[in-house]
Amino acid sequence: MRSFAGRDILSLKGFERAEFEHVFEVADELEPIARGRRNVDLLAGKTLVTAFYQPSTRTRLAHEAAMHRLGGHVLGFSDAKMTRAGDFYQESIKDTVHMLEYYGDALVMRHFQQGAPHEAARWTSIPVINAGDGWGEHPTQVLTDLYTVQRELGTVDGLTFLCIGDMRMRTMHSIAYALTQFDAEMIAIAPPDMSLTDEFKAELAEQNFTIREVDHVRDAIAEADVIYMEPVVQADYTASRQERGEDVGTTPEQYRVTREVLNDAKPSSIILHSLPRMDELPPDVDATRHARYWEEAYYGVVMRMTLLSLILGAKE
Amino acid sequence: MRSFAGRDILSLKGFERAEFEHVFEVADELEPIARGRRNVDLLAGKTLVTAFYQPSTRTRLAHEAAMHRLGGHVLGFSDAKMTRAGDFYQESIKDTVHMLEYYGDALVMRHFQQGAPHEAARWTSIPVINAGDGWGEHPTQVLTDLYTVQRELGTVDGLTFLCIGDMRMRTMHSIAYALTQFDAEMIAIAPPDMSLTDEFKAELAEQNFTIREVDHVRDAIAEADVIYMEPVVQADYTASRQERGEDVGTTPEQYRVTREVLNDAKPSSIILHSLPRMDELPPDVDATRHARYWEEAYYGVVMRMTLLSLILGAKE
Amino acid sequence: MRSFAGRDILSLKGFERAEFEHVFEVADELEPIARGRRNVDLLAGKTLVTAFYQPSTRTRLAHEAAMHRLGGHVLGFSDAKMTRAGDFYQESIKDTVHMLEYYGDALVMRHFQQGAPHEAARWTSIPVINAGDGWGEHPTQVLTDLYTVQRELGTVDGLTFLCIGDMRMRTMHSIAYALTQFDAEMIAIAPPDMSLTDEFKAELAEQNFTIREVDHVRDAIAEADVIYMEPVVQADYTASRQERGEDVGTTPEQYRVTREVLNDAKPSSIILHSLPRMDELPPDVDATRHARYWEEAYYGVVMRMTLLSLILGAKE
Repeated sequence: MRSFAGRDILSLKGFERAEFEHVFEVADELEPIARGRRNVDLLAGKTLVTAFYQPSTRTRLAHEAAMHRLGGHVLGFSDAKMTRAGDFYQESIKDTVHMLEYYGDALVMRHFQQGAPHEAARWTSIPVINAGDGWGEHPTQVLTDLYTVQRELGTVDGLTFLCIGDMRMRTMHSIAYALTQFDAEMIAIAPPDMSLTDEFKAELAEQNFTIREVDHVRDAIAEADVIYMEPVVQADYTASRQERGEDVGTTPEQYRVTREVLNDAKPSSIILHSLPRMDELPPDVDATRHARYWEEAYYGVVMRMTLLSLILGAKE
Repeated sequence: MRSFAGRDILSLKGFERAEFEHVFEVADELEPIARGRRNVDLLAGKTLVTAFYQPSTRTRLAHEAAMHRLGGHVLGFSDAKMTRAGDFYQESIKDTVHMLEYYGDALVMRHFQQGAPHEAARWTSIPVINAGDGWGEHPTQVLTDLYTVQRELGTVDGLTFLCIGDMRMRTMHSIAYALTQFDAEMIAIAPPDMSLTDEFKAELAEQNFTIREVDHVRDAIAEADVIYMEPVVQADYTASRQERGEDVGTTPEQYRVTREVLNDAKPSSIILHSLPRMDELPPDVDATRHARYWEEAYYGVVMRMTLLSLILGAKE
Repeated sequence: MRSFAGRDILSLKGFERAEFEHVFEVADELEPIARGRRNVDLLAGKTLVTAFYQPSTRTRLAHEAAMHRLGGHVLGFSDAKMTRAGDFYQESIKDTVHMLEYYGDALVMRHFQQGAPHEAARWTSIPVINAGDGWGEHPTQVLTDLYTVQRELGTVDGLTFLCIGDMRMRTMHSIAYALTQFDAEMIAIAPPDMSLTDEFKAELAEQNFTIREVDHVRDAIAEADVIYMEPVVQADYTASRQERGEDVGTTPEQYRVTREVLNDAKPSSIILHSLPRMDELPPDVDATRHARYWEEAYYGVVMRMTLLSLILGAKE
């Protein structure tokens, strides 16, 4: 297994099973620190630079919280408008990153443009974490999700993942890449204009990984061990929603996970959602035995503690 | 007296005299750290999450400064537009707070909506500080103010508070609740459309606390020990001010505290103003013996050091 | 030499040779900390307040990075819109600074208005760093630049500085003041509407410092030891650029430093540019022996570590 020290976390494509397992082991070691709510000094000597070209609360704050929990330092920007990349200079990623590398010891970047963190990694000597690049990938989120599965269900192997939502989204790419490394099945449910691309399916087929596609959450809910959700509602849907009045449901029924639908689910099945949510996951589901998205949020901090410790060389 | 460890600071309603006294004692203990300008490590193990849905400099930075002075960590957001609550997701407070609780050990929230911090406190296991909720309350500001009085005048008992400004504002609510616990008098001066509501007066009457109302600062200035000010000028006044030209005074004379009016004040009386100010408090008052608003700003840090130490269990 | 403890860094006018030398010596001492990428605790007891009334990435983050590298704390604002100075209160610098001084132990301020940091320094007891004040000065940038020259060329004496760009800009003012203290020459190249003002030339003449002015980079490139650049393209140029299409060069040839022009440069000459850049410095120059702007960015952190340690009394 390649060492994690100094390594970029850009994609889960090519991330190997032994690497997932190692990351989960280190996470198990660090988890009691988060649970104990007591900052330690494992990363006191290190500074994380946050470069968020798009707004983010969860992903940005989970990385920051992880650094603080380990006694580390954080600086950066959370809005491209505050940078020279966002004003009339339109500074290149190369120039920005050449500067940022002197401000800290690792860089976490979110960018609206697919591949931007990869470009950043080319021009800097410090490790780069992809915190979401357009339609590309979101590796730290999916590592969080799989670790949540590992903790809550004891294993990833042998499980069926029912993925509901926009299949072009970065988390869907990352989870499919990840599941190729496990003995797991993936079923996808998406609106026709948001379904898996042929290119992506072909790429996965090369790894002998096939995704089954169904039309309605009802058709597969009984098989699911993990119900993995993303919204299908986008900004322009919302406009018409406001025109029609607040209470009108906007997500078509076949992409919603409701208490009623969950009547057909396995008792042990769990729901993950990286949040925020629209109406695809009604709040009254929170009280069911299936909800695990708050745990997922918690493990989001644990996973970032783990990844930062690994790439900064504080953990082997 | 209830313990402060793990406790929310949402309102001064029901805050008891013994609690004020205890808070002031702990503040006296911690004050030399602020005065000595030397960060210590009392809260090194703790992280404060800032959730400011409305801009704030003073209140936000005073909390942050307090954490840093005690060696603690801070993360969060200072603008709702940077969050999923401020974009088309309109994420609920419940969902946001369920996430934030994993990012730190206490939460300080400002919100445009009255009661929002109370709602937050329902959904999180970490203590919540209300940093101002719409027209609601502003308990940490008023604790600061009363502590400033205690330090500058030696006591709160036996004093007459002359409160000038918009009586519907949150500080006015908090100070009235607070003064019910002391042997103090409150006189209010406000424009008719900004005067005390009947509901609020009735609520205070139940505690046998009556607020005298007068029309002009001149009518009561001679009685005041503490002159407690808020602006009466709001954004829409400013528009007309700009139309009329910059130099036109905008605050009617009866709500302004000028050097001339202060000729009739007790020599020992002090002026508090949480700032920023419009023309209700002209800068030439700064050089009078009455001005204490910079001290108030200083004690603002001391008070937040105190409250954070208490709710985070670092002080008994 | 005056002690640096508690001192403001507002201008390089009157900054003496012995002071430059001392600053460079302390920078040499601290530089290995930055190179070693390991935060120490020299400033763990101290908090820096950032007051950026205009966006900045480089200058703001370099100061923040310096504090973090030395174990210190940082808080503040990076956008005037988030403050009461930027909203309808239009809070005065006096009022803002009276508040900020309780939040930390040194203040770094960028302001669109020339002289604003000087005004701030009048009203606060903590040291103030000018991080750029309108057309005024930018002392920490120019200290960085001269330190880069010192490190890369071993000395500032005996060198010819070829300064290209808008001569009304704050870095140009600061570098001219600085060079009066060395045995160095300055040649200026600027568009006619951006040339040195008569007042500024007269002021330098009093110090027996004369700036030679030429029209085209070709006329002086062979003499330069240090090629010191600022953009000449401003926001309104950009509009017309966009109208004309992305690829149209916008900086007139005589103010550009290209590989072709560099054929006539001394092999040992170095290019400094505080960045961001427009097309006055094409990216293919980065691979030449002359480029030192990434080193300059690195020394920007070292210089802020130095200045902060000095004014906060952590270094003599």
